[in-house]
Amino acid sequence: MRILGISGSLRRESHNTRLLRGAGSLLPDGAELEMFDQLGAIPPFNEDEEQQTPPAVAALNAAIAGADAVLVATPEYNASIPGVLKNALDWVSRPVQSTPLLGKPAAVIGASTSLFGAVWAQAETRKVLSTIGARVVDREIPIPQAEEALGPDGLPLDDDARELIEATLTELIELAQRERATA
Amino acid sequence: MRILGISGSLRRESHNTRLLRGAGSLLPDGAELEMFDQLGAIPPFNEDEEQQTPPAVAALNAAIAGADAVLVATPEYNASIPGVLKNALDWVSRPVQSTPLLGKPAAVIGASTSLFGAVWAQAETRKVLSTIGARVVDREIPIPQAEEALGPDGLPLDDDARELIEATLTELIELAQRERATA
Repeated sequence: MRILGISGSLRRESHNTRLLRGAGSLLPDGAELEMFDQLGAIPPFNEDEEQQTPPAVAALNAAIAGADAVLVATPEYNASIPGVLKNALDWVSRPVQSTPLLGKPAAVIGASTSLFGAVWAQAETRKVLSTIGARVVDREIPIPQAEEALGPDGLPLDDDARELIEATLTELIELAQRERATA
Repeated sequence: MRILGISGSLRRESHNTRLLRGAGSLLPDGAELEMFDQLGAIPPFNEDEEQQTPPAVAALNAAIAGADAVLVATPEYNASIPGVLKNALDWVSRPVQSTPLLGKPAAVIGASTSLFGAVWAQAETRKVLSTIGARVVDREIPIPQAEEALGPDGLPLDDDARELIEATLTELIELAQRERATA
């Protein structure tokens, strides 16, 4: 079982990249997290260039197609999804009939340094993924005040938050197993 | 009175770029539309690079600072704001204390080839602009089925839609005049 991790932040010391790795450490035996690390190389989406897929977009398409499920960790910029993350999803969504996200199990988690834990960004990301055709786990994991909330392993110090992440991963894996069984 | 026009689509024959020019032709004497044409040159936002403003971001900051108001025309990608447009706004929003959008009058219009006229993208763009601190005109101009809806001059063939654009521009200019008077 391969889970593709996508962090919506390009910052080197990103809380969300750390959170994603932390979540990866909670995966059961037989499941592993692979990080997509070329988000910053994806150019601005331009419909005129839709026919010539840029290399980083081709890499993202292939990584999603090769994964059983996708796990996104997103920060929140200006009460919404980061432009960088949305731009990547805009590319991947085309052409709509053959996007690798079609029917793909996906879940969204997120951390922010504010008091709200990136809930708007997570909600918008779930909406966008659903619109593209992914099968999205209906859970939200708000991690506010990320600087204090996350331990050195990238996992929330708070037990409840950690359990929420485990529950989300469990649902994501169940979805992926069901997809596999019916494929 | 200078209105900065920002199209959320990079496509050469973009309906939204045409719509923006059409709206510009409706401006009263003494007000003119200037188009920002470097959106495609804005790199992915990365907090690590926030201190070294990229040239296209500096150009956008200067264009907004030099304008009395901002008029955004946005398509809708995957039921939300285009990543390209959001990424530009993410850059412009930093640092939060000195963004040129603070207190800046702004309005959002939009066209899509679907039946819904980019209403979700417009709503998200208004939310994002408000969050950054702009003074946003509370109006929505949905232009569905843009291919048939817009004339060669970029204006809606439908009189009601054209009147909605005029009403929006009037409100935007009033806001800008009030800002000027109190500045």
